[in-house]
Amino acid sequence: MKIGIVISSTRPTRVGPAVARWIADQAPAGFQLDIVDLAEVDLPFLAEPKLPAMGDYTQESTQAWSERVQQYDAMIFAVAEYNGGYTAPLKNAIDTLYAEWEAMPIGLVGYGFGGGARAVRALEPVLSTVKAEKIDGPELAFGTALTPEGDFLPEAPAAQVADLYLMLRDRIPARV
Amino acid sequence: MKIGIVISSTRPTRVGPAVARWIADQAPAGFQLDIVDLAEVDLPFLAEPKLPAMGDYTQESTQAWSERVQQYDAMIFAVAEYNGGYTAPLKNAIDTLYAEWEAMPIGLVGYGFGGGARAVRALEPVLSTVKAEKIDGPELAFGTALTPEGDFLPEAPAAQVADLYLMLRDRIPARV
Repeated sequence: MKIGIVISSTRPTRVGPAVARWIADQAPAGFQLDIVDLAEVDLPFLAEPKLPAMGDYTQESTQAWSERVQQYDAMIFAVAEYNGGYTAPLKNAIDTLYAEWEAMPIGLVGYGFGGGARAVRALEPVLSTVKAEKIDGPELAFGTALTPEGDFLPEAPAAQVADLYLMLRDRIPARV
Repeated sequence: MKIGIVISSTRPTRVGPAVARWIADQAPAGFQLDIVDLAEVDLPFLAEPKLPAMGDYTQESTQAWSERVQQYDAMIFAVAEYNGGYTAPLKNAIDTLYAEWEAMPIGLVGYGFGGGARAVRALEPVLSTVKAEKIDGPELAFGTALTPEGDFLPEAPAAQVADLYLMLRDRIPARV
């Protein structure tokens, strides 16, 4: 089972990479992991002439992103919260595709102020619209789970993240 | 009073420019209007090393966007809905600044499927966090207010948009 772990912030001073590595470190045996850094994926803002739901992509970057997402059996989004919502790079990465998300088990791990809870909530109608299988994981709040620098505290809910992998595995659709 | 009318989608086949022009056409006398096309503003994904709330911008694009927003007494966002949420270019344009939004009267006019209602709702915690003065305008649904091509039907709530300008005017903070 191959799991893509998405870093949703692209700021140079973000803590997202540390969060994603920690999430990867909690994986039980048997999972193949790939960190998906949206700063490296470097998608442009959606500029496809046709709706992504039509699947008729004209840009190489869209096609490459489609192929990458299709490699994964499930994904985990490390969800940063900007101003009470999800980040633009994460929303753009979702909106750039469509059919690729259908039935994809996606675990959400919010982090930052308030554990990223408002960003996680705001993703609900989005992931529902693209027909993904959303599973909420723990929310990593500054002060209880991680420091403002992205270091993890002993209280960080490592066991809940390990459980999230197992819940994702149980939702992976059977290959036809 | 100078009002910036924001086109929130940057796709080449978007109807946003037609919506923004129609919104501009409904303005009562006495308003100076400027269409703010986020495709032309062309901001990068937020990559400032410091939090925008610190106001210590390092990129020319951020400084230019800050200066442009500060020109306006109020703004109207023509809110496209992508997958049950706001567009990435609009969220990125908001997240790139911070203090510039404080006390800014912002009218929201959703459009598209469902009148963009879910995108408008998702903006509530965002505009609240940046301390803007949000005022909901009408939602322009395909079929009742506009066609899928962005042409306006006789039922389009032009009077409600005209009222929105007056409500925005009443919320403009007194200049010190």
